[in-house]
Amino acid sequence: MGEPGTRTPRERYRAQVQEEIKRHAWRQIATAGASALSLSAIARQLGMSGPALYRYFAGRDELIAELVRDAYRSLADTFATRAEAGTDLAGLAYALRRWALDDPRRYFLVYGTPVPGFEAPRDTTRITAEIMAYLLDACAAERPPPVPRPLDSHLAEHRAWAGEHSVPSSARRRALAFWTRLHGVLSLELAGHFAGMGLDLAELYADEVRALGGPRG
Amino acid sequence: MGEPGTRTPRERYRAQVQEEIKRHAWRQIATAGASALSLSAIARQLGMSGPALYRYFAGRDELIAELVRDAYRSLADTFATRAEAGTDLAGLAYALRRWALDDPRRYFLVYGTPVPGFEAPRDTTRITAEIMAYLLDACAAERPPPVPRPLDSHLAEHRAWAGEHSVPSSARRRALAFWTRLHGVLSLELAGHFAGMGLDLAELYADEVRALGGPRG
Repeated sequence: MGEPGTRTPRERYRAQVQEEIKRHAWRQIATAGASALSLSAIARQLGMSGPALYRYFAGRDELIAELVRDAYRSLADTFATRAEAGTDLAGLAYALRRWALDDPRRYFLVYGTPVPGFEAPRDTTRITAEIMAYLLDACAAERPPPVPRPLDSHLAEHRAWAGEHSVPSSARRRALAFWTRLHGVLSLELAGHFAGMGLDLAELYADEVRALGGPRG
Repeated sequence: MGEPGTRTPRERYRAQVQEEIKRHAWRQIATAGASALSLSAIARQLGMSGPALYRYFAGRDELIAELVRDAYRSLADTFATRAEAGTDLAGLAYALRRWALDDPRRYFLVYGTPVPGFEAPRDTTRITAEIMAYLLDACAAERPPPVPRPLDSHLAEHRAWAGEHSVPSSARRRALAFWTRLHGVLSLELAGHFAGMGLDLAELYADEVRALGGPRG
């Protein structure tokens, strides 16, 4: 995007319209779901013609892809801010929960039911790798290291996904557990599966965060 | 439903049409998502008038509610069959995974992104309580019992959700962990978040199942 000041009025206008289209898209996702996203409905709401809107996004999938990029980007920024304050797994865990609770639509667009017919854009792997890198850093820095488990030998042979991180298998296993366990609590919480159970969901989350920090993590 | 033999031809016909509507609904969910489910599109596909179809399901939400009931029912039946073969947590865990992989649409309808505007029918709490009961039975039967954790004292005061099960807090905590951790792996797996990582996802799942069986569960 560059600095706003370096852009021409035309570019600034284009960016404003794009943001407005995205705001309408999020509203549609909240009321009708991502799979029902309709560019022509957004065009009507903005008082634009369909073809005029298509000059901003070539189609439904390109618009969703942009929202997915924004969502991952905001999580990466959240982790980056947290990591500046010191690398620790619990800090990232609570940052993840706040990010998810702040906007459940955003959470579910990325981590919920796949949108039929939509394929996540390939260029997001760069951002998801960045998110994973913060997590691996925190896992590698953890003391005490996790007690070895059978999965570690599998992970010793399958390390490509960790990119350039040469962290031990046990730390990569802990990073995976961070991911799957915390998403397990969050997705069930945000979808309302604990409703009426009278549980303190922050406590339930904290219990998993503590378990991750323990030697069996 | 009762025995087919006890139903009149008219009732049998009605049940057949209902099943056919549901099959078309699942197909629509696969191609367009649950939020885009359209009763009039199904009526067209079946060569029925819209009003004729509404005699079977009063609206989109009633149709989705029936699919949700079927989905929970099939999971309860899966757990019941497994429990007959002996109560163990790992057995239920692998039954859950097979159930989820067998039909990801069904999995996501129940455990995925909430369908905007749709409220889960209240009568499913009976089936979900049945599912939870199998899980609590298995957790109560586990040896060794989980090592106490801070969450246990919260669960000691919040036990209403476990219904008539008077299992110890640590067993209820393990049942919750079963639920959240395994859904965490499954939902990320089925949504494709591990694609391209080269991991054996059955191994990743097995690692979490083993961790649940351990004393820190």
